[in-house]
Amino acid sequence: MSKTIYVINPNSTESITAGIDAAVTPLRSADGPPIACVTLADGPPGIQSQRDVDGIVAPLLKRAAALEDDAAAFVIACFSDPGMYPLREQSNRPVLGIAECGVLTALTLGQRFGVIAILPTSIPRHLRYFGAMGVNDRFAADLSVGLGVTELADGERTLARMIDVGRILRDVHGADVVVMGCAGMARFRAPLERELGIPVVEPTQAAVTMAIGRVRLGWGGRPLGGGLS
Amino acid sequence: MSKTIYVINPNSTESITAGIDAAVTPLRSADGPPIACVTLADGPPGIQSQRDVDGIVAPLLKRAAALEDDAAAFVIACFSDPGMYPLREQSNRPVLGIAECGVLTALTLGQRFGVIAILPTSIPRHLRYFGAMGVNDRFAADLSVGLGVTELADGERTLARMIDVGRILRDVHGADVVVMGCAGMARFRAPLERELGIPVVEPTQAAVTMAIGRVRLGWGGRPLGGGLS
Amino acid sequence: MSKTIYVINPNSTESITAGIDAAVTPLRSADGPPIACVTLADGPPGIQSQRDVDGIVAPLLKRAAALEDDAAAFVIACFSDPGMYPLREQSNRPVLGIAECGVLTALTLGQRFGVIAILPTSIPRHLRYFGAMGVNDRFAADLSVGLGVTELADGERTLARMIDVGRILRDVHGADVVVMGCAGMARFRAPLERELGIPVVEPTQAAVTMAIGRVRLGWGGRPLGGGLS
Amino acid sequence: MSKTIYVINPNSTESITAGIDAAVTPLRSADGPPIACVTLADGPPGIQSQRDVDGIVAPLLKRAAALEDDAAAFVIACFSDPGMYPLREQSNRPVLGIAECGVLTALTLGQRFGVIAILPTSIPRHLRYFGAMGVNDRFAADLSVGLGVTELADGERTLARMIDVGRILRDVHGADVVVMGCAGMARFRAPLERELGIPVVEPTQAAVTMAIGRVRLGWGGRPLGGGLS
Amino acid sequence: MSKTIYVINPNSTESITAGIDAAVTPLRSADGPPIACVTLADGPPGIQSQRDVDGIVAPLLKRAAALEDDAAAFVIACFSDPGMYPLREQSNRPVLGIAECGVLTALTLGQRFGVIAILPTSIPRHLRYFGAMGVNDRFAADLSVGLGVTELADGERTLARMIDVGRILRDVHGADVVVMGCAGMARFRAPLERELGIPVVEPTQAAVTMAIGRVRLGWGGRPLGGGLS
Amino acid sequence: MSKTIYVINPNSTESITAGIDAAVTPLRSADGPPIACVTLADGPPGIQSQRDVDGIVAPLLKRAAALEDDAAAFVIACFSDPGMYPLREQSNRPVLGIAECGVLTALTLGQRFGVIAILPTSIPRHLRYFGAMGVNDRFAADLSVGLGVTELADGERTLARMIDVGRILRDVHGADVVVMGCAGMARFRAPLERELGIPVVEPTQAAVTMAIGRVRLGWGGRPLGGGLS
Repeated sequence: MSKTIYVINPNSTESITAGIDAAVTPLRSADGPPIACVTLADGPPGIQSQRDVDGIVAPLLKRAAALEDDAAAFVIACFSDPGMYPLREQSNRPVLGIAECGVLTALTLGQRFGVIAILPTSIPRHLRYFGAMGVNDRFAADLSVGLGVTELADGERTLARMIDVGRILRDVHGADVVVMGCAGMARFRAPLERELGIPVVEPTQAAVTMAIGRVRLGWGGRPLGGGLS
Repeated sequence: MSKTIYVINPNSTESITAGIDAAVTPLRSADGPPIACVTLADGPPGIQSQRDVDGIVAPLLKRAAALEDDAAAFVIACFSDPGMYPLREQSNRPVLGIAECGVLTALTLGQRFGVIAILPTSIPRHLRYFGAMGVNDRFAADLSVGLGVTELADGERTLARMIDVGRILRDVHGADVVVMGCAGMARFRAPLERELGIPVVEPTQAAVTMAIGRVRLGWGGRPLGGGLS
Repeated sequence: MSKTIYVINPNSTESITAGIDAAVTPLRSADGPPIACVTLADGPPGIQSQRDVDGIVAPLLKRAAALEDDAAAFVIACFSDPGMYPLREQSNRPVLGIAECGVLTALTLGQRFGVIAILPTSIPRHLRYFGAMGVNDRFAADLSVGLGVTELADGERTLARMIDVGRILRDVHGADVVVMGCAGMARFRAPLERELGIPVVEPTQAAVTMAIGRVRLGWGGRPLGGGLS
Repeated sequence: MSKTIYVINPNSTESITAGIDAAVTPLRSADGPPIACVTLADGPPGIQSQRDVDGIVAPLLKRAAALEDDAAAFVIACFSDPGMYPLREQSNRPVLGIAECGVLTALTLGQRFGVIAILPTSIPRHLRYFGAMGVNDRFAADLSVGLGVTELADGERTLARMIDVGRILRDVHGADVVVMGCAGMARFRAPLERELGIPVVEPTQAAVTMAIGRVRLGWGGRPLGGGLS
Repeated sequence: MSKTIYVINPNSTESITAGIDAAVTPLRSADGPPIACVTLADGPPGIQSQRDVDGIVAPLLKRAAALEDDAAAFVIACFSDPGMYPLREQSNRPVLGIAECGVLTALTLGQRFGVIAILPTSIPRHLRYFGAMGVNDRFAADLSVGLGVTELADGERTLARMIDVGRILRDVHGADVVVMGCAGMARFRAPLERELGIPVVEPTQAAVTMAIGRVRLGWGGRPLGGGLS
Repeated sequence: MSKTIYVINPNSTESITAGIDAAVTPLRSADGPPIACVTLADGPPGIQSQRDVDGIVAPLLKRAAALEDDAAAFVIACFSDPGMYPLREQSNRPVLGIAECGVLTALTLGQRFGVIAILPTSIPRHLRYFGAMGVNDRFAADLSVGLGVTELADGERTLARMIDVGRILRDVHGADVVVMGCAGMARFRAPLERELGIPVVEPTQAAVTMAIGRVRLGWGGRPLGGGLS
């Protein structure tokens, strides 16, 4: 099982890739597929607008094409799941997005999920995606910390805001599970869960978990709807 | 009122732009905004995959930026509404997509809308979008004619298949209004409606209608959620 | 194109008809269909209860029948869309309701729409209609200013309350677009939008915009579900 | 307990009132409220269009006002529940509609309900109502027998068509309970259920059942949303 | 009509059975089916967890089997409707659950129903059930009084908390009808409704009402989906 | 990491446990948690009715309690997820159900999922669960092969029927991914997928995949809604 699960951070901020790498380390096993976290150098420092989302699709597809032969699966580590559908068309490998897997995993941990976004402008984009996913009946609310991707580097301030937002999600909106809505929030999962007392999902961990299963089982790699064309 | 409503055909097939231009001609008025239909030369001959959709966002935004000063509004004339959300972020003008306007217009003409797609692979993409739009409760079915964009040039074959699919939408799935799911189908609206006996929506006409209103009224040009950031 | 789009105000308050007339003036064009705003003299001063709504259907149908030969289209200018479905059965012209068109237009301007109602008793009626329209997944909230139709004449008080309610819709319920839920609120659109910083839809303008398109394009005039009977 | 439950047949066909009367007879009890089935002489022979529905609201309200002092509750015995909401505003008594009660009762008997309509034109009207009721997730399909209200008098033909339609609802659309979508179908309940082998709901029986409870318990008579105004 | 409607309180608290018995007394009639309220001695003092719910299914089925020959119908008087589906499989009689009937009855009294639960842990269980019932579009909120079943015995404290919670449901969440989410709350219906000014549903009364109809009409006793197996 | 993931087959048919064991073998890793598949000797040969489902909760909980100290996580290997919620209350370990995980995994592989059930009577039970899960907008259809659990032993007949049903799900109902609705179907995944040409999900594999992630990551073990009580 020498092929690799590639976790692609589509922004260019290396410290976020490092945080992702630390987050998925417990999922590495001696006889399992290697897990490599890579940074999309062509990406912006943070993916914050729909323009950012759509803009990194082409470089992401190019990077993934170069990795295809060596890839066991791809995980796109941005909460907007940029390029997930076109990469499923392009690649013969399983392709997983962290927003999709993070939300679906949350559905096994609580009845109503709340989401912590980075910026207010992320929220309509998330809502469109949750509608496309068909999970509105399980949705509590999506609230932002008002910090851009690179501002998450200030850990103390970020965690404090995440705790504030998480409490509102829990107490006002009835969320009984929370999804962190940015790959850059990975290191805050444990302290946030401790403070809130309800499960907190780190979405890259959720996606890599599912990717490992696909690779080991040898299924899930055909393109979406491929059998219908 | 000298600024222009730009209807951008994001594929490179000039004959489709010509068909769109003919379709919107009745909407032109002497004292209203000019309506110009332009072709995105950088686009593929037809937009058929999610990769095509995402791939033309960058050239579309570039083209729209060049037109911004002279633009009264933008209409994106592809049933996947590629680049609609990022163009709303980029531009200060109203931005309308033909899928969104076509489906919403259908909701004023029948209780359950059916859609005629070009290819089977378009259908999951449409379904995701209808979910994001939140209109599933009004949705009857989405069926394809099995023809690529450029194959629509064979008018006789295309119309025959559209009639077949339209009848199934009406009789099996209970659709009482049909939306044509490709800008390249514009010239078939009238004969199709005659055959089916239920309203048929040409989505570019639906979108340009709404764009004219926005321009004349002077509202609807601020970016989605812009007031929240 | 000498036939006329008739905008029928189904209440008997002439000042509201005048406000509607002013609101649709920018939509008039030299070579387009004339737009005439008429008052239903048999209606109550304001349509505030379900009884009012149902009670004006018969006089509305009678008035529309008298106008049919000269009509290009009908717009019913009351946010409960009274008589819209039976008029679609009776008339061969396009028939549009301002609530339907106002809400659908809002869906192109934001992800979650809020509604400003006149009275608390209007709200369950609106909710039933939004359910029938199938747009609940995009609905933020519907809150009232607590003023009857004729009380809207006090412009200062009305605008102040609309701003208060609009802020709650935006900040507490997450609305990123607002629909004004009464034809009598037309003159408050611009100042309200300025205060809220998010798009505000005047529903009669939305409906007349769509009516003009139908008339120019020559479609959309057959009764709902007419092809099925 | 001398006040009477009035079951109002809003069409003028006396034989249908007689059928309703027979259907509710088992619900009469010596010490319970009398149940009187009355015909709205001003109604059309059958209520088949939205115009019919809206047109009988005024005479229905007038008739109910005359009965108010003697009434324990009102049941509106037409599957479009005409006038139900305005009568709830007008009357201090419980007001129940047979479509609402018939569908809700079906939800206790199966997971997906099918409806047998009289005419194809009834179906969009039913769908709007089911949307307003918020029961689409439990809805299988609504199919018509293609017979007007007065044509139901031909019992043999009607039952044969109801059985055909019921089988399609059950076998093609997965309905496991069927609601008869017209008060004039009351006498076909037992034979239809025998043929289909799944529960069949007669909606007037469902509504009168609930009305009796309201009267005996002394609650449920306040107007909808009355406490909010 | 000598067979009996058995209302089974599946917890072992006799005072709750007594409260239920008082609540259904107005529904008893001289010539109708007797209504007997019985206590499941094997049940816990209160049913508060999913474990409690599932744990009483077996003794409930056993008790119902013993009563089957003498039973006209069964009503399960616990707001989690424990054992309702398996009892429908086991019994030839109509089987009604108080949560199902209580919520459906509320849908005839208001547009958005709120629920008063006993404990916070009940809420996710209720939400799952409302999802299975498909009534989320009519759902306002479900809030708890924070009291266990046996604590409801302190009437003054319980009523005070129910009024507080009811006001939040009405004023913050827009509920215009409230369902009491525990059979042990029966005696608080009238004072709560008086305080809130909107309809309050006592769910056991709602279920027994429907059971009486089934018995008198002689239908509704076949198992759910029985015709499909 | 010596604690074990226990996959509990709640029926007593050892050959099904053996099939599950074979299915999850690729998921075992040298340095990962052991995965043990155990049979609930007290269960029926197959879990086919709601009574079966509810009836095995008590023995399942008892068995799980005995395993708790040695358990890293629990997977309940029956497509009705019997006892999942009460086991989440009882245990401090992650508890996953195969229906929940199978359906959620399918949502990452196609836009509309179809389900192959064993018996027609399973379908309403599944539909209730999909409603509780809130995934109806992604649901295509649920059809049965008409075979009881033990009849699945006849592999040739079972596979033939699964292929027939799978084709109807794909071609008539538009499913682009299929979930096998019984743990006893595990060995048919690969040949079924080959025949259908669209992804097929084996739900026990989906659940064990997610269980491994939870164990390795050390989160997801707190009871549902535990933080709210």
